[in-house]
Parts: sequence; structure tokens; C-alpha cells
Amino acid sequence: MTKLESLEQYKESVLSYMKTRFAVKEPKNLYEPIDYILNLGGKRLRPVLTLMACEVFGGKPEAALDAALAIEMFHNFSLVHDDIMDDAPLRRGKTTVHEKWDINTGILSGDAMLIKAYQFFEEYPPEVFKRLVALFSQTAMEVCEGQQYDVDFETRNDVTIPEYLRMIEFKTAVLVGAAMKMGAVVAGASDEDAEAIYGFGRNLGIAFQLQDDYLDAFGDPETFGKQVGGDIIENKKTFLYLKAMEFSSQNEKEELLKLFMEETQETSKKVEAVKNIFINSGAVKFTKAAIQEYTDKAFLTLKEITVEESSKKLLRQFGEQLMYRSI
Amino acid sequence: MTKLESLEQYKESVLSYMKTRFAVKEPKNLYEPIDYILNLGGKRLRPVLTLMACEVFGGKPEAALDAALAIEMFHNFSLVHDDIMDDAPLRRGKTTVHEKWDINTGILSGDAMLIKAYQFFEEYPPEVFKRLVALFSQTAMEVCEGQQYDVDFETRNDVTIPEYLRMIEFKTAVLVGAAMKMGAVVAGASDEDAEAIYGFGRNLGIAFQLQDDYLDAFGDPETFGKQVGGDIIENKKTFLYLKAMEFSSQNEKEELLKLFMEETQETSKKVEAVKNIFINSGAVKFTKAAIQEYTDKAFLTLKEITVEESSKKLLRQFGEQLMYRSI
Repeated sequence: MTKLESLEQYKESVLSYMKTRFAVKEPKNLYEPIDYILNLGGKRLRPVLTLMACEVFGGKPEAALDAALAIEMFHNFSLVHDDIMDDAPLRRGKTTVHEKWDINTGILSGDAMLIKAYQFFEEYPPEVFKRLVALFSQTAMEVCEGQQYDVDFETRNDVTIPEYLRMIEFKTAVLVGAAMKMGAVVAGASDEDAEAIYGFGRNLGIAFQLQDDYLDAFGDPETFGKQVGGDIIENKKTFLYLKAMEFSSQNEKEELLKLFMEETQETSKKVEAVKNIFINSGAVKFTKAAIQEYTDKAFLTLKEITVEESSKKLLRQFGEQLMYRSI
Repeated sequence: MTKLESLEQYKESVLSYMKTRFAVKEPKNLYEPIDYILNLGGKRLRPVLTLMACEVFGGKPEAALDAALAIEMFHNFSLVHDDIMDDAPLRRGKTTVHEKWDINTGILSGDAMLIKAYQFFEEYPPEVFKRLVALFSQTAMEVCEGQQYDVDFETRNDVTIPEYLRMIEFKTAVLVGAAMKMGAVVAGASDEDAEAIYGFGRNLGIAFQLQDDYLDAFGDPETFGKQVGGDIIENKKTFLYLKAMEFSSQNEKEELLKLFMEETQETSKKVEAVKNIFINSGAVKFTKAAIQEYTDKAFLTLKEITVEESSKKLLRQFGEQLMYRSI
């Protein structure tokens, strides 16, 4: 059975397979931006999970490479279009596609990436192809819905915790679940096993995103990839914020509302003030508890999966590694 | 066998089936723009062709309804994203999606439409599903490439006639071919027949687009849907322009270049001057000949199709109706 050290090998095989399945061709202005974003780096978490899930269910990881590429291509498509919508200048420390080229290029190259993702599945026979494509479409649609909820929440002041959780489930977690389920489908796992690993990935994805909310405010600036406090500076209504609004005293609530309404130049003061409210209100405690809850949920679904214990241990180790990360 | 009069019935059945297969749901800001653009009207040419091709090859037209909807959804997706790229305020006389909402809504709702188009194919069994989806992806990718060539041509002064023809083939004609081929695939036509009807649709699509170029300059303002002379005002390098640059005298060529470089307020004078060069240089004659050439090519492929003569006659009548239109 595979070891955690082999995750790096999965990543390498995804990257080298990508080179054989995608190359810039004419019209260059359509394909060069795709090549650019695909090679910006990143953990390649999702395609690695596809290969890992395939192997866990007894398949050869190489058999899942095309599904893994589809997932990675889709993820990058969503980054390109989201970066336009967020007016983001940087992605992984490099210029975003629409900044390096222009918005129209970002739109059209993104569209081509979404279509290209579907084309990777054509390597599979019709029955498997249909299962993978249907799962892919459903997931992709949910990611769009999640993105729309995220946009809608910016101008709403009555977002509830369940609504927020559904938003991150759709925007982030379902793709993690689908990435793993695709590996299971390619390996020929039973429907029950495929559903269970989907649940594992989805719950882990929710925990991962909550962890991201937490680290954005409380992560170590030395190791966290993004600007610590970025969400606070942008007045994002994260899980921490919603929990603080739910549990803080009337005074703190008013202060938090005020801090999130005003445009300030003194961002470090603002970040500190907000973080204090997050701690004092218990929002940090609640957030950590929610991360643990979803991680536990993920681990519970492992019980339903009919694979050997060593594989379950690997999945659990992987989940722990992801959850106790500081980056 | 179906008659041309039943084309209106095809259109009606597409529209009423669409209501059963698409409805606005949450998040409304994602789905309402889709509902809006789908109901802006239009000839519904492409989905009608899918039903027609299905019936010509002995299938029940209703069996092709989901493929027809996929084609119509994709076509509308491309309109939404193209209108953003072209900064177009109006579509079919109504406000475009990104004008009525905003650019971000246009991008995200467009993405959802592309995914939704794929989902319509899920009604078909795996073998048919795979054939349809692969054809759809290939066509969609070519449409993106065609759009990219169109964008690239705006800033190029050395576009050749073959390059222009490939651009309109990809941007417009392959979708017409694919719409018809999908009907053939659903009807269970042979690969040869499916390929032949694809060629029929593609050549007719090229002729249709050349006709559009011609009508944009020389159409009857009373019946032509768009502003006559619009391409000239926007300095678009259409087939007429490229042929004029190829065949006009040195003086006329310089005048045409000058007219296409300067920003002028006197658009009607400019349109008249350019139209005169189009006529004098023989560009109009060459364009009409090219329209005829591609229409003839389309009709020639009908010879290869193994269906009864009455069906071929119907396809020919349809093509003629389309080509000798004035709108």
C-alpha cells in the first residue's frame, strides 16, 4: 500500500502527465494563458486525492490521471474567472491572467479550460465516462452556486451560519469530495464506497476551508502563504466573523460592525482589534470546534468504506496532516 | 415526412420543452440572468436543425430535444460571454446580461450555462451520451478558438481570406454542423451519414455567415434586424473588406485603409463610400460567388446521405430559404 511520502510522487506524475495532455497551440492567445495558470504551482491537492482514492480502492493510480487532470483544469478555470470577479491582482504571488493579459482573455481562456476539463474524460469507456462527467457537471454547477452565494453574501448583513457552511461546501468542499469519488469510480469501487469517500472528501473540505478562515486571521505570517488578516481588511464575513456577531457582547458587536463598515488606512490596528473580538467572543473557540467536528465527521465516514485498515490509516493520516497544517 | 411548415412546430416544441427542463431556482442571481437570455427570442435555428436532422434520419424528433436544448443553451452562453467581450449594450434589441446586471454576473451565469448544456445530455444512454458529449466539447472548443481568432484579427492588418474563412467556420459554422449531426446521432444514423450532415450544416453555416457579412452592408434596413452598415462603422474586417483589399485599385485601397483608420462622426457618408469601393472592386461579386459556392458544397454533401429523396428535398429547401433570405 502507498505511503504518505508517495503523495509527492502522485504530484510529480500529475505534472508530467499534464505535459503530455496539454500543450500550447494556435490560437496562442487562447492557449498561452492556460499554460501560464497551469504552471503557477500550488499543492495540486485535488488531483493527488483522485490518484490516492483510486489506489485506495485497488485501482492503478495511473488509470485516474485523466480524471485528475480534469479536476485540476477545472480548479484552475475557477481561479481564473474568480480572480476576474474579485479584481485580484495576484495569484500564488504571480500576476493573475486578466492582469497579465486582459479581462476578455481571462473570460475566453477560462471557458476553454472548462471545456478542456470535460475532454480529459474521453479516455474512459462510455459507462465510466458518463458517471464521471455527470459527477463533474453536478460538482461544477455547485461550485458556480457557491461562488454566487459568496458574491451575494458581500452585500447581505443577515447571513446565517448554515448559509455560510453551505456556501463553503459548494464553493470548496464538493470539489474535494468529487476528486476522491472520481478515483473510486475509476477503480471500480461500489456505489456505497464511492459515496462514502465523497463524504470523507466533502467534510474534510469544509474543515479545510474553516481552517483557512482561521489561519487567515491567526496563521503564522512566516509560513501562511497569504497576507495574514487579509479577510479582515476586506471585511469578509467569515465563519469567525459570523460566530463573533452571534456570541459577542452588545458593545463588541457594535464595535465589530463599525470596524467592518469603515474604510481605514490603519489596517494593522483594525486587524488587531477584530482579532481581539474574535478571541473574546469565543468565535475562535467555536471555529476550532467546528473544524474538529467536520474532521471527525470525515473520519467517521471512513468506517463505512470497505478497504483494508492500512488504507484507512493512510486517509486518516492525510486528513490529519491537512488539518494540523499551519500553511 | 415533415414539411417546412413544421419548422415552426419544432421551434414551439423546443420552447415548451425548455420550460420543463430549466427553471429559476436559488441562488436567483445565478439563474435569473440565464432565464432572461433564454427568453430573449431568436429564430432558434440550431435546436430546430437538431430535431429536423433527427427526423430526416428516421428518429422521432422528440428524442433529440435534450440535445437541441444543449445546443441552444451553449449558443446563448456564447452570446452572454461574447457580449461582455464586445462591450455590447444590446442583444436582439434588449439590454445584454452584463448591462442589465454586471460583468461578474455575466461571467458566472455564462459559466453555469455551459455546464448546464452538458447536463442536458445525461438523458441519453452511455454510448450515445459519450458520442454527443465528445462532439459537443470539440465544437465548443472550436467556437472558443473562432472567437479568439476574431479578437486577434481586430489588431492584425494581414488577415488572409483562408484565415477569415476558418474563423467564421469555427465561430459560427461548426455549431450548425454539430446541431445537425447530433440529431443524426440520436436517430442512430451511420457514421457516414452523421459526417455528411455535419458537412452540410458546416458549409451552410459558412454560407450563412458570409450572407450575414453581405446583408450587414447591403441588407434592407426595413427587414434586416441589425443596424445596416454596422460592420463598416466598427471597421470590421469582413469578407467584403478583405476581398476589396485584394482586388481594388491602389487608390481605392488607400482610401479604404484611410476610411477604416479614422474615427468619423459622419457615419452615413463613410458607409456609402465604403460600399462604393466594395461594389467597384468586385468584392460584392466575389462575396456573392462565395456564398453560392458554400451553398453548393452543402447541397453536394446531400448526395452522400442515404435518406429518401423527399428528405433531401426538405434539407435543400431549408438551405435555400436560409440563403435567399433578406433578414
